[in-house]
Amino acid sequence: MESKNYATLSKTAKETKLSDLKESYNAYVNKKLKLDMSRGKPGEDQLALSGDMLTILHGDDYTSPGGIDCRNYGGLEGIPEMKGMFADILDISPEEVIVGGNSSLAMMFDNVAVNMSHGVRDGEPWMLQGKVKFLCPAPGYDRHFTICEYFHIKMIPVPMTPDGPDMDTVEELLASDPMIKGMWCVPVFSNPEGIIYSDETVRRLAALKPAAADFRLYWDNAYCIHHFNGPRPVIPNILRECEKAGNPHMPLIFTSFSKISMAGAGVAAMASSLSNCEYIRQRFFVQTIGPDKLSQLRHVRFFKNYDGVMEHMSKMAAILRPKFAAVRDKLTEELEGLGIAVWNNPDGGYFVSFNTIDGCAKRTVALCKEAGVVMTGAGATFPNGKDPRDRNIRIAPTYPSVTELQTAMEVFCLAVKIAALEKLSAQ
Amino acid sequence: MESKNYATLSKTAKETKLSDLKESYNAYVNKKLKLDMSRGKPGEDQLALSGDMLTILHGDDYTSPGGIDCRNYGGLEGIPEMKGMFADILDISPEEVIVGGNSSLAMMFDNVAVNMSHGVRDGEPWMLQGKVKFLCPAPGYDRHFTICEYFHIKMIPVPMTPDGPDMDTVEELLASDPMIKGMWCVPVFSNPEGIIYSDETVRRLAALKPAAADFRLYWDNAYCIHHFNGPRPVIPNILRECEKAGNPHMPLIFTSFSKISMAGAGVAAMASSLSNCEYIRQRFFVQTIGPDKLSQLRHVRFFKNYDGVMEHMSKMAAILRPKFAAVRDKLTEELEGLGIAVWNNPDGGYFVSFNTIDGCAKRTVALCKEAGVVMTGAGATFPNGKDPRDRNIRIAPTYPSVTELQTAMEVFCLAVKIAALEKLSAQ
Repeated sequence: MESKNYATLSKTAKETKLSDLKESYNAYVNKKLKLDMSRGKPGEDQLALSGDMLTILHGDDYTSPGGIDCRNYGGLEGIPEMKGMFADILDISPEEVIVGGNSSLAMMFDNVAVNMSHGVRDGEPWMLQGKVKFLCPAPGYDRHFTICEYFHIKMIPVPMTPDGPDMDTVEELLASDPMIKGMWCVPVFSNPEGIIYSDETVRRLAALKPAAADFRLYWDNAYCIHHFNGPRPVIPNILRECEKAGNPHMPLIFTSFSKISMAGAGVAAMASSLSNCEYIRQRFFVQTIGPDKLSQLRHVRFFKNYDGVMEHMSKMAAILRPKFAAVRDKLTEELEGLGIAVWNNPDGGYFVSFNTIDGCAKRTVALCKEAGVVMTGAGATFPNGKDPRDRNIRIAPTYPSVTELQTAMEVFCLAVKIAALEKLSAQ
Repeated sequence: MESKNYATLSKTAKETKLSDLKESYNAYVNKKLKLDMSRGKPGEDQLALSGDMLTILHGDDYTSPGGIDCRNYGGLEGIPEMKGMFADILDISPEEVIVGGNSSLAMMFDNVAVNMSHGVRDGEPWMLQGKVKFLCPAPGYDRHFTICEYFHIKMIPVPMTPDGPDMDTVEELLASDPMIKGMWCVPVFSNPEGIIYSDETVRRLAALKPAAADFRLYWDNAYCIHHFNGPRPVIPNILRECEKAGNPHMPLIFTSFSKISMAGAGVAAMASSLSNCEYIRQRFFVQTIGPDKLSQLRHVRFFKNYDGVMEHMSKMAAILRPKFAAVRDKLTEELEGLGIAVWNNPDGGYFVSFNTIDGCAKRTVALCKEAGVVMTGAGATFPNGKDPRDRNIRIAPTYPSVTELQTAMEVFCLAVKIAALEKLSAQ
């Protein structure tokens, strides 16, 4: 373990070190690795935990506990038992839940689409009001940003703090600009930083006084029960807080079973005020024959209830803990004290957020790629793919095995060091 | 069986008959029936045909023939084998297929939505061009019409002929109005009339010269393999015909397994030109994590290939044939020769289209409802729910058992007679 701050090295020492590092790096290049750490994709072992779901129904067993034939049409907003399970996870009432298909991303896209073309609650369509803008806490989730890009929505980055989005900035921007119609939030184990919004942040968000009456909080609670170290984090209930603050229809909450059961065959849901749900229900009647109720029934049978879900998530945690530990240990061992990187050590979620020194993220990711280790593209965590300081890299430790992770992180750390030394040498 | 034309009855004879009919009708009212013929919903027996699909995968068996782990993320346009099965059904290449979720209606809605907000092929959004109009062959499918209503699209009804939509009208309207952006077609066993478009109709549709370059043919081929009497109807291939006519990007084809496997848990797909598919693929990347591949794999394993699908559909036909026969027999027995109704006898599809004398459909359906027999709302088969002659009723024979059907049809025929006599007496 080296511990001397790179910035303090002499020119010659830097050159020697860079040459040594490149030698080690080239040895990896020659190994022609194929390792993928680009997406928050569950590993085989995680998926295997719900293998029994595949056989839990059979030819004479397709009826929900409440008596619905889950094979046939109908049930636009989901079977009651699935709504109930989501309600318990989100600590709200089942009437506030609308169950969707397999993708919460699709539900978010759909909600942006309908607000663009039809307005909120049948109001004036956003896209007919002028240039729509969204507040985008950054670093954030690239898929939120691509939805904005698709709808030509101007993204306004908001800095993240250890307590969540910088609320002074949020309040100031929202108070004055009626074209700011939305804001993306991942309140628990934020993507990629693993930050949990503080109680104060949640309450200030709920109490916002946006200039736009049709402003919506896109509350993507994807990781609400994805803690792998310690207990489930509890934050104030956004639906109740918004009610108290006189903004009952402002939050649109999204979550899913994608990272609980099967990534591509989970069940997604959204939640909002009762009357928002009624608007959505009316649209669903036009839009679809209803979600796949057999998939919902498989989830209800397999998980049974909230306690069943939480028991499952503790098995999930046992799989994820060593993976995140492998990343943390390698980063500490290789990079601590060198003054060329900082990173977080989250207690849940799917990512480790890593910052190089300014101007080194793209080069680091490119070096990894050349050595067969695919990382999320540098910049992806910022609106329009542009990290103004070119420093943030999202590490996704879930998909590879621990052994693969260790190799991948060795390559990654070499890449970080090389990129940093190149940068420092050029200064 | 009575066979005297009602119109020729004397006033007294009409009165006596009406009084007799009401007595029989009231006997049914007192039975408090609960029979539903409102939707094209498969019956229990149809769903049971694919019961084995529910157990065809298991905890160690989730990999597609081509090696894709169907539990995880990825595969935006479906697994290759599912695309292949759709390609064989539609007689096109797998590259022209995009597999979706469980609902082809959702895919149609989505395609209208994106054309409204983004235009076709990233062109000028329809909704920014003025008042969008669609041609709506009528009677037609109510769910097509509600999509138009939702998007504030003006619907222009086009009369149906035994060969499909009246093409003279279609060509004339389209040639002159650049705001006509779409047309709904159900080319095989049209909903509700069971009409198969003639070769000439298909070729004239393919060769349309719309004033709008961004006009799209919404080709809902829901019933392409739903023949229950005789062989599969063959119509010209709309994709190839449109290519030949210089309109390669005009057709958007939709179909699904909803009425082949499980109604609520089938697999839907769309097909179009290769470059249209590329636009859709790019959008899907933004819009979703991808469709449920486990559901696709269940379909691939269960049906195996096109021959497997067709073998399954012949079992389906054996179930549906007696149901449609029961409707036809009862209608013939009760109504033939009375001069108060006409109906079709389709060889496939899901509906019998029934016309009362003008001004009697609403009253007939209301009488049925009062006696516990729910029919599709009168008018539903026309844009905005307005049948100009108030005569069309869609009969959906699939959901009830044959015995229930017979009872329901007795009530229906009584209602038809009463409504007709009331009308004739008032004239």
